Amino acid sequence: MQKTIYERAWELHKVLGGKLDTVPKKRVWTRDDLSLLYTPGVAEPCRLIEKDDDLAWELTIKRNTVAVVTDGSAVLGLGNIGPKAALPVMEGKAVLFKQFGDINAFPICLDTQDPKEIINAVKLIAPTFGGINLEDISAPRCVEIERALIDMDLGIPIFHDDQHGAAIIVCAGLINATKVVKKNISDLTVIVNGIGAAGSAVCRMLSKLGVGRIYAFDKYGVICNDLCHMYNSVWKEISEFTNPLNEDLTLDEALRLADVFIGTSTKDVLTADMVKKMKRNSIVFALANPDPEIPYDVAKEAGVRVVATGRSDYPNQLNNLSVFPGIFKGALRCRASKITDEIKLAVVYAIAGMIPDECLHEECIVPDPMTMPVAEVVADAVERAVHEEN
Amino acid sequence: MQKTIYERAWELHKVLGGKLDTVPKKRVWTRDDLSLLYTPGVAEPCRLIEKDDDLAWELTIKRNTVAVVTDGSAVLGLGNIGPKAALPVMEGKAVLFKQFGDINAFPICLDTQDPKEIINAVKLIAPTFGGINLEDISAPRCVEIERALIDMDLGIPIFHDDQHGAAIIVCAGLINATKVVKKNISDLTVIVNGIGAAGSAVCRMLSKLGVGRIYAFDKYGVICNDLCHMYNSVWKEISEFTNPLNEDLTLDEALRLADVFIGTSTKDVLTADMVKKMKRNSIVFALANPDPEIPYDVAKEAGVRVVATGRSDYPNQLNNLSVFPGIFKGALRCRASKITDEIKLAVVYAIAGMIPDECLHEECIVPDPMTMPVAEVVADAVERAVHEEN
Repeated sequence: MQKTIYERAWELHKVLGGKLDTVPKKRVWTRDDLSLLYTPGVAEPCRLIEKDDDLAWELTIKRNTVAVVTDGSAVLGLGNIGPKAALPVMEGKAVLFKQFGDINAFPICLDTQDPKEIINAVKLIAPTFGGINLEDISAPRCVEIERALIDMDLGIPIFHDDQHGAAIIVCAGLINATKVVKKNISDLTVIVNGIGAAGSAVCRMLSKLGVGRIYAFDKYGVICNDLCHMYNSVWKEISEFTNPLNEDLTLDEALRLADVFIGTSTKDVLTADMVKKMKRNSIVFALANPDPEIPYDVAKEAGVRVVATGRSDYPNQLNNLSVFPGIFKGALRCRASKITDEIKLAVVYAIAGMIPDECLHEECIVPDPMTMPVAEVVADAVERAVHEEN
Repeated sequence: MQKTIYERAWELHKVLGGKLDTVPKKRVWTRDDLSLLYTPGVAEPCRLIEKDDDLAWELTIKRNTVAVVTDGSAVLGLGNIGPKAALPVMEGKAVLFKQFGDINAFPICLDTQDPKEIINAVKLIAPTFGGINLEDISAPRCVEIERALIDMDLGIPIFHDDQHGAAIIVCAGLINATKVVKKNISDLTVIVNGIGAAGSAVCRMLSKLGVGRIYAFDKYGVICNDLCHMYNSVWKEISEFTNPLNEDLTLDEALRLADVFIGTSTKDVLTADMVKKMKRNSIVFALANPDPEIPYDVAKEAGVRVVATGRSDYPNQLNNLSVFPGIFKGALRCRASKITDEIKLAVVYAIAGMIPDECLHEECIVPDPMTMPVAEVVADAVERAVHEEN
């Protein structure tokens, strides 16, 4: 009997015993090597950095090293499994950083789920790193933690990939899907279903992109100015720029108005009958992992023009693998200390622009990071945006 | 003109741009690789560790990864240069961990010098690591921080190398030097000069070794039961088992009683005239770095039988490079959660035992870690000691 992917993954993890090695760029074979890499020679770079701490960017690993920080509270679809059980995912993320961005990344799994402690821990470990990638921290805490860290001005970029990685690739995909169905971004009515880390960031970026109208749905229904949404800081904020008429719609009612459905929720919340109610030339991004809100084929057969999922075995995989390696690669190259909305939008357009208009079609709206140099294009876009801002 | 070691070290650090790379043990070339190392396959090791967190030792980098943690408060002989300027030293230490112990080590330079914050930060980052090597933290804070962390029982060993690395190699050297001069450990009168991290740990370990009498000297003179020593927690503790008659001796007076002088202080505190006052067949370990308390040749010419320093260009280099790689290698192998005094003593005897009695002489009291498998011998000693304790 053939082994499942899970059995094979377990076996591979057992054989590897951890997926990362920390390797010296120069080995110590002689006493001279020892004197250069360690005492007494190492005193010289230390003294230079003490005088001018900018030199840490030249003389140390800070130049090209990112921390992948989690509290293990929202790991993949597994939920709150804690910091130790989250470690294999963070190691995997570090593998991807190296492979796709040529960046050294190191997992930091924190033994706390208290936002204040997480913020403080990141601040304390910051000197070693050139950037912080927050990962798999549950909403709305992830938003508060990221903002607090950005406000602290640690001199290095803080980027919560689950939020902005998802938002950026969704918006890049949406720009191209909209071209395919020949609509204007500003005319679109978009439903975002599932307002956690990814969904809330998608809403914000759709708004920056100039989308006409957004309806944000969570487990209590559409986000509007009602009581049950006000206790969650993220939902409250989303209510301020979505659903402008403050309509109390069901998902079914909203679908009748919608050109686009973006799911960052769970499997099977969408049926063929439901998507049939959407406007003509509809677009569905069903991003729940591993099982989408509606299977690719079912959505297509029900008449949706452009369908995208998070899966690699169907067309149009929307994967933040296209985003985070290039974002940090570009930021480290030009020592950007913040990933601003302008940088994120520049990345959205850069990724969308990788598919020439004449190649765009229903089954090809985003570049494939496994075969195309997406990280390099993204890094260039980051650098250009940073230089324009300065 | 020939370049100095400092110029060459600076150039090398500039070329390398950081001395460490974080390298995937398996690369991601295909979608199948991605599915095994990242989603969806990685969910399986996560789920297994969630059920039994001991499996983190099998399936993650915790198995073989140590954090090198500093606050930059006492770096080499450079003093309090802060966390960023300390990074080249911590990277160098990580290079040595890999080269000599085959252990992955990663530098964590903390942006705080508050003991409580340091303790908390180490506790929070612990899940990723199989051990914590504290480094270049100033005394007496380093002692308090290490003990607090040990008492927290994080399930991984905490080891402040500046204390115990120095103490272990000094005691190994002393055992063999004592054989060379044909004295008994229990008959020795030993002066320890400079009671910081290293000196205080040397005093404690000498006492465990059964040394007859210890006089501990710091900048205020010999440590006794007087007021000026009681405000420092480490000095207070040292006063309890040194200088039993509570004598108020000058260094000169103490030297007349001494068989052994161990300096962990600064250069030139000892002159030829001073060492001439010591008992016959005297032993001097002058460990100040890079310039010892008395130059090797000067001490020898003044009649000291066995002289050791921290320098590689003279005989008898006492280097904690013989200690920390093997300590962690052994501890990680058997998942020891504490480095007890029994383990440390076992290591002392193991290192001393590497020089057979017939090979011992004035210029050969300790093995050379650059050419002998010291880490392996130390690791074996750690493992045996752990098994005996259980």
